[in-house]
This record gives sequence, structure tokens and C-alpha cells, in this order.
Amino acid sequence: MHLAHELLVRIDRAVDTSLTRQLYEQIVQAIEAGRLRPGDPIPSTRFLAEQIDVSRSVVIKAYEQLQTEGYLEMKRGAGTFIASNAAPIDAEPIGHDPNLDYEMIANVPNLTLVTSSPPVGHAHGGINVPNDFRHGVPAWDMFPMDRWQRCLVEACRRATPATLSYGPAEGSYALREEIARLVRSTRSIPATPEQIVITTGATQALDILARLCVGDGAPVLVEDPTHDVLREIFSYSGGEVIPVPVDEEGICVQEIARSIKMHSSHSDVVPKMIYVTPSHQFPVGVTMTLNRRIELLDWARKNGSFIIEDDYDSEYRYAGQKVSALAGLDTSGRVIYVGSFSKTLFPALRIGYVILPASLIEPFLSIKWITDRMTPVLEQEALTEFIQSGQYAKHISQMGKLYASRRACLVQALQDEFGDEVRYFGDEAGLHLLIELDTNINAEFIAQKSFEFGAKIYPASRYFFHTEPSKATFILGYSNLSEHQIRTGIHQMSCAVSALTNK
Amino acid sequence: MHLAHELLVRIDRAVDTSLTRQLYEQIVQAIEAGRLRPGDPIPSTRFLAEQIDVSRSVVIKAYEQLQTEGYLEMKRGAGTFIASNAAPIDAEPIGHDPNLDYEMIANVPNLTLVTSSPPVGHAHGGINVPNDFRHGVPAWDMFPMDRWQRCLVEACRRATPATLSYGPAEGSYALREEIARLVRSTRSIPATPEQIVITTGATQALDILARLCVGDGAPVLVEDPTHDVLREIFSYSGGEVIPVPVDEEGICVQEIARSIKMHSSHSDVVPKMIYVTPSHQFPVGVTMTLNRRIELLDWARKNGSFIIEDDYDSEYRYAGQKVSALAGLDTSGRVIYVGSFSKTLFPALRIGYVILPASLIEPFLSIKWITDRMTPVLEQEALTEFIQSGQYAKHISQMGKLYASRRACLVQALQDEFGDEVRYFGDEAGLHLLIELDTNINAEFIAQKSFEFGAKIYPASRYFFHTEPSKATFILGYSNLSEHQIRTGIHQMSCAVSALTNK
Repeated sequence: MHLAHELLVRIDRAVDTSLTRQLYEQIVQAIEAGRLRPGDPIPSTRFLAEQIDVSRSVVIKAYEQLQTEGYLEMKRGAGTFIASNAAPIDAEPIGHDPNLDYEMIANVPNLTLVTSSPPVGHAHGGINVPNDFRHGVPAWDMFPMDRWQRCLVEACRRATPATLSYGPAEGSYALREEIARLVRSTRSIPATPEQIVITTGATQALDILARLCVGDGAPVLVEDPTHDVLREIFSYSGGEVIPVPVDEEGICVQEIARSIKMHSSHSDVVPKMIYVTPSHQFPVGVTMTLNRRIELLDWARKNGSFIIEDDYDSEYRYAGQKVSALAGLDTSGRVIYVGSFSKTLFPALRIGYVILPASLIEPFLSIKWITDRMTPVLEQEALTEFIQSGQYAKHISQMGKLYASRRACLVQALQDEFGDEVRYFGDEAGLHLLIELDTNINAEFIAQKSFEFGAKIYPASRYFFHTEPSKATFILGYSNLSEHQIRTGIHQMSCAVSALTNK
Repeated sequence: MHLAHELLVRIDRAVDTSLTRQLYEQIVQAIEAGRLRPGDPIPSTRFLAEQIDVSRSVVIKAYEQLQTEGYLEMKRGAGTFIASNAAPIDAEPIGHDPNLDYEMIANVPNLTLVTSSPPVGHAHGGINVPNDFRHGVPAWDMFPMDRWQRCLVEACRRATPATLSYGPAEGSYALREEIARLVRSTRSIPATPEQIVITTGATQALDILARLCVGDGAPVLVEDPTHDVLREIFSYSGGEVIPVPVDEEGICVQEIARSIKMHSSHSDVVPKMIYVTPSHQFPVGVTMTLNRRIELLDWARKNGSFIIEDDYDSEYRYAGQKVSALAGLDTSGRVIYVGSFSKTLFPALRIGYVILPASLIEPFLSIKWITDRMTPVLEQEALTEFIQSGQYAKHISQMGKLYASRRACLVQALQDEFGDEVRYFGDEAGLHLLIELDTNINAEFIAQKSFEFGAKIYPASRYFFHTEPSKATFILGYSNLSEHQIRTGIHQMSCAVSALTNK
């Protein structure tokens, strides 16, 4: 049993860190440094407790935490091992330059608003890779790729000419049935498969809706703040994007008329669409209250407008009751519901869906057909299998526990490092946290300095239209960082702020 | 050796059909009726020749034909067997109604031109399923799904956070490298991976180009006839679609000015784009001559217009020399090359690509990003593996032989049934043949009557703008029909014409 030596565990009873925490962090470091490799056995809790002279419960707690985070796996009757996907992953960007798409997109003259995707490839775990608080990405190492692979193989085995040919634009009927069941049970939406269209990610659903409804320069309302790609999608189709402020109950329905008057060039035109994120407002994180939902539905009914309900992040809620989706409360066919599997499985899957009121099904499909005819089919079939076999529900449940724990860790780390000088927004849900630091230093400077210290953090000002925050506001994703990385990263951020303050 | 009985081969020396043909057809019928199943052994040529009292060369020829068409497979040292994917495939349409997307799309008021995809699900092989001359679909049963499955598994195994995340909008660099190699060697196009963008099928490439260049109502030139979805894509983006006639050398460059004068509402505006199908004009099938290509490139250079070269079907040429792609001849950055794997592998894959002049790369990517961010990645990785392992080249080569043989069979069958009353268009290439019958009966009536007899054939008039043919013109796909089905189907068509003539 030479492994305790390889672990090089050194318990220091003089420091303020708990023994469990010390043990946990040293094992993580050993994995990340490559001293412990996937498949390596780990000493039993009893053996290690004796070796390093701590109580066994200390080791058990550390192992449990490591298991929750995917560093360790138990094999029944064989012991505990370093998990097969716990290796330090070297950033392996696809393409010649991970920043290329960002650079390219930022230079297009014809677009009134430009996107800028965070550069890819700066994952996660290895040495000399920053602690990246990128938002909207799941925990890569926890995705059950082996099971997904089996579902793909099954999809290949079952393939028929009908599934391999130009199928219907709306996508696999079996998948649409599963989605109808999912949204009925988890979001109280009484949807039929006939109302559902599979799209190449939620982005495509939004782009098609923009082409369908605002192509003629019609006003479209969005939350302020909102995701910048939204503004770009609606603008590019010719829509006039009008921001409406958000408060702690969600979008301010009472402010709609005033917003139109303030920002629209033709204030007498009724907006065709309003885009909202009720489950976890992006980026603020508030959940739209039931009162506000009813108010919004009333407004849409009276004005004959459509509400786009982007229900991203609805899968993850760590405290409080889930509120019914707008689409579940809607009785007059005004709500278009958009969902995605990108944030629950993996973004490169590109499978989203839209639930349409009857009047929009045909027009939507006609545009889907000229856009890309249909979303690739084999992965739709694999996803159907993944859901039917119970893997999807299991994965969401496991991730929910993991993310809740990571979120709590982030809040604690922020509290430890910044105390009263940090303010949190939003509810305990989703994959990111919006925070504001009580400092006059520019958020971009803090981000740059933090990067020098090893933490990649994201200023949130780009998401704000007219309600730009006066303080340094950041959007911190926590879903793809270990608790060790979260604590280290926030400490690095704190060091950066100190360095800038003492200048 | 009871198999000769199961084959129930009855050789009739009184009929006009060759012995090889009789044997071939009876084996196909036995497979399609399910009397012979995948994996069943087939008697040796020597044994069967003795049993049915024919020369051995008759049996060898029949077996060879069956092997070429994928009905039989030889296993070295074990004998000959019914191929594992030669079963009668029951049509298993996805969705509640295979005609639904057609119906839906046909009823959209906002579109000036509507698509109508042929209904899916009427494959191929089974009993009571019509002989369907649908065009643009590969031979399903010949796709090496087992190898594709292995490539997908490999892609899953190699997946990293970088490949599973939001990658670059332009797609997998490795795949773009393979495509650059492919087009360099097979199409003489000196493309770099940096010029290539992976799209969700060729359709998406065309839709993005339409949004990019003709969104402001600019004129766009298309061939007349052309695929109706093209007209729809350009119209929907706001372009003014202007048809230019096609002759036996390809698009009539000399006619461009006159066509603009005749069909454009603002005849002084220079068209931003011209869409052509030089390898195998759709639907006529002619190959654009070298002279015409040079003339077209000159025209584009002088006018500062872009040429969209849709090089669909370029993989299959059965006679004559391949002509260099326009993109290979272009020296002034005017050609946008569009390719696809849908017709060589399977349409539901939805992987196409575009090779862009430098000036268009950034604008194209910005629209790709708001359209669907990127094309799903795992199947891009699988395709890379499929190409790198040599499977792609092998598949194209095998299909080329098979399709050449099916095309020859179709021409012979038409000759046998219609003699001088049929006229053929185009070159020996691609997956379909355009024909004209010397009759005054309406093509739609012939198609309806043929369907009653068991053959599904497609009138071509929908593809014509102003040059509508005076006679009954049909587009006949042959790639997904066995020679037996081709002969039967053309005979049924002939019976239909006779029935209508004798009324």
C-alpha cells in the first residue's frame, strides 16, 4: 500500500482549514498534477485514516465530496478509484485559434449589435489553466459519455431509410413525444407532440421566430439586461429591439408602455413579441413571480402579442418552489416556449425545441425547412433513447446536487473573501451568479488583473442596455469548476482587487 | 442443400428474358418477399447451375449483379450469403403523417414560392410499396451503417470539453482539413481550411448566403429550370429571383442581360449573385462546358458579382471527363463553392460546407453564429474519422459503380418500353435522369396513373420558370431502386401511358 505515499498527504493541525478540507484539496491537487491517474486505486478510508492519524469520518467525508464532484468512483467489492474522466484535461481547442470566431464576428459592419462568444478551450482542471468562471456550460467531466455512446449505437442500429432520409422539418416524433411528457410533468405545460418542433439549439428557434415575426421592422421587447446574442438576432432580422427594465419580480410589465415611448421610433405600433427568461432571468437570476406572470399574460392577450418564454436553466432550482411556466398558465395561445438540451447535456449537441401556439406551427416549419430542412436525426434518436432509459432524469438529478453544492461553495468563498463588499442577485437556481462588488474600480480592470492571478471572470455590463450598473458587476458561472477551483479562483479575484486598490 | 428449393427458381426457356436475368429477378423477389433472409447461405454457383440445369456462367453473372447491388455478400472461405442489410425494409415513417411537412409548407401565405418535399417513407424494396423514382436520395441499404457507428463511437471516445462546448462557428478544424484535401484532389480547388465553414446541410449555406447578399432586395440570378427550394430561399430573404435559360452547355451567360431586362423590376441594378449547378445542372443534367465556365467567370469579375457553385452530384460521373470546378478556375475571388455529404452518405446527417472568398468569411460566420451557433460536433468528428480511414473514398467508389449500372438499366428500360418516344437530357452523371415523353397527355395525369400501376414518378414542370417544356417531362431518380424495381417501374409507367392513350 504505497499509495498513501503517492498521495503525499500532509495534515497540518496548526492551520485554520478543516482536516476534511485539507485531505480533499490535496487529493484534488494530486489528480490535477497527474500524480494520481484515472483508474488508480485509493486507499480504504480505514487504512488512510490510520496512516495519517485522523478519525475515519474525516476521510469518509472527503471521499464523499470527491465522489460527488466526479473525482472518485466506487466499484462495488473492488474499492475506490480515481474516476476515469478525472484526468487533468489539457485545453485542446478545435481550430487554429480559439479566439478566431470572436474576432471575426466582432468585425462585421452590417450588424447593428455584435456577439462575442467567450473564447473556448480554457477549460478546467489542469495546471496553469486559469480558474474559468465561464457561465452556461455544464460540468464536462460529469457527462456520462459512455451511456450517450450506447444511445448513439442504438440509434444507428435502429436506423431505417425513413430516419436517414429527408424527414419532416419538425423532427423525430418519438423525441417530440418525450419532450411533451417532460414539459408536462416538470413544467406543467399541456403540450402535444404536434406543437413541438426540434431545432438546432434554442438559438435557431429564436432566429426563426425573429425572421417570422419581426422581419418587417416590428418592435420586439426584451428584458434589460438580457443576453447580447438576443439583441443581435432580433436586430439582424430587422426588428426594433426595445429594452424593458427588470426588478426583483422579473420584467416590469407596468414599464412596457413607457419603454416603448422612450426607445421606439414609432411608438404607436404594438410590439409583436416580448422575450423573457422567467425561470432564471438572464443575467440577473431572479425568478418571475406568479403575479408578474399573470400580468404579462394579460398584457400579451390584450395586445395580441406573442411572449417568447426562454426557459433555459429551469432544470436547476436549489431552493424555493418551482413556478409554473408561462406556457402552462397561458390560455389564449400567446406563449411560445423555447427549451434546450445544450446546458443540461452538452452544447455541441445542438438540440433545442420550441412549443408553438397552433397559429405559428405552419409558418415556423416553412422557415425551418428553408433554413436547414431539419435538425440532424441520429442524435435526436439517441436523445430519445437517453430520455426513455431514464438516464436523462438521473443526470439532471445528479447535476442538480453537484451544482447546488458548487453554488453554495461560491457564495461562501465570496463571503470569505469580500464580506460585506459583495452583493448577490437572483435566486438559488441555474448555473451562474450575478454579483456586484462595492468598489469604484472598473470591472474590466478587475477582470484583467484577476486573469493575471489565474482567474477568468466575466464583467456583466455588456448585457445591460440602459440600466447599466454603477458598480463592478460580474457574472460568475460555477457549474464547470470544482469547489477547489472555485475557492482558489475567488481568492485570486480578491487578490486582484487588493492589488488594484493598493496601487 | 434444400436452399435451391427455397429459392424456388423456375427457369423458363420459352420467354424472351435471359436466363441470367430470370435467375437474378427470382432471387431479388425471394429476398423482398422475405423467403430469403439476411445471413442465409446461397448455393454455390456450381451446385445451383446443376440443380436448375443452366451453364455455370449464367449463375456467376447473376450472382455478380446481385453482389454489385448489395443483395449478396461473399465471405472468403465460407461461401455466399444474403447481405446483412438486404432485408425488405418496411416503410416506417417518423411522425404521425409523412405528408405533414409538405402540407404545412404549402399553406404559408408569406412565402412567394413554396417548397414541396416529396413525402418520405415510401422506400424501397418491400411488397406493395411502389417503385419510387424519387431523386436525390442515396441507396439506403448500401450505406455502411456499421462503419459509421464505429466512427461515432470513436468520436465519443475522443470527445474533450473543447469538442463538447460551444466551439467555433466554422466547425471542426480537422474536418475542414479533410474537406480541403478532398476538393483539392477531386475538384482542383486550392482551398485552405480557413476558407471552409461547416453548415447544417448545403441548404443552410444557401440560406445564409441569401441573407448575407440579397437581403436588401438585390437581384439574384438562377438557372431556369432550377430547384424550387432555391427560388424560395432567395425570395424569402428578400432577393428578386431572375431566371436565366440553360442550354446544352449550361447557363446561357449571353442571355443574362436580356433576362434581367425581361424579369427585373429595376433592370439597372447589377445582380449580387448568380446560382449555378455546373457539374450536373439541376434538373436538366448537363455539365457546364469549359468555355461557358470561363465566360461566366468573366461576367462575374466584370460585374463584381458572386457565383454560387452548388457542386451537388459532382461525386458521380459515369462517362466523359470531369471538368474543373468553377472555384478551381476562379482567380479573382468571385466563386462561393457549396458542397454536401447528404447525397453521398445520408440526408439526415445534415453536414454540408461552403468554401468562401476571403471577403465573405467573417460576414458569413457572423450569421452562422446567430443562426444556430454551429453545426452539431460529434457527427463532424465521426465524418472526419470516416474520411481519414478511407471509408468515404471506398463508399463513393462502390456507389459510383452501382449507380452507373442502375442508370444504364433505366436508360435500357426506357428504350425497351418507349423506344423513339422518349428523349433524354443531360450527361451520364448524378443520381437522376430528366426525360421527355412524346405525348400530349399531361405529366400529372401520367404520374397519377403510374402510381395506380405501382410506380411513383415525378413531373419536372415545377422546376421550370419560363422555359416550361411543351411535353410531358419527368425527373427520374434511380439511385435508390434495384434494377428489378427500375424495370418493373418503367414497365408500369408504360402501362399507364398506354391506358391513358387508349381511353
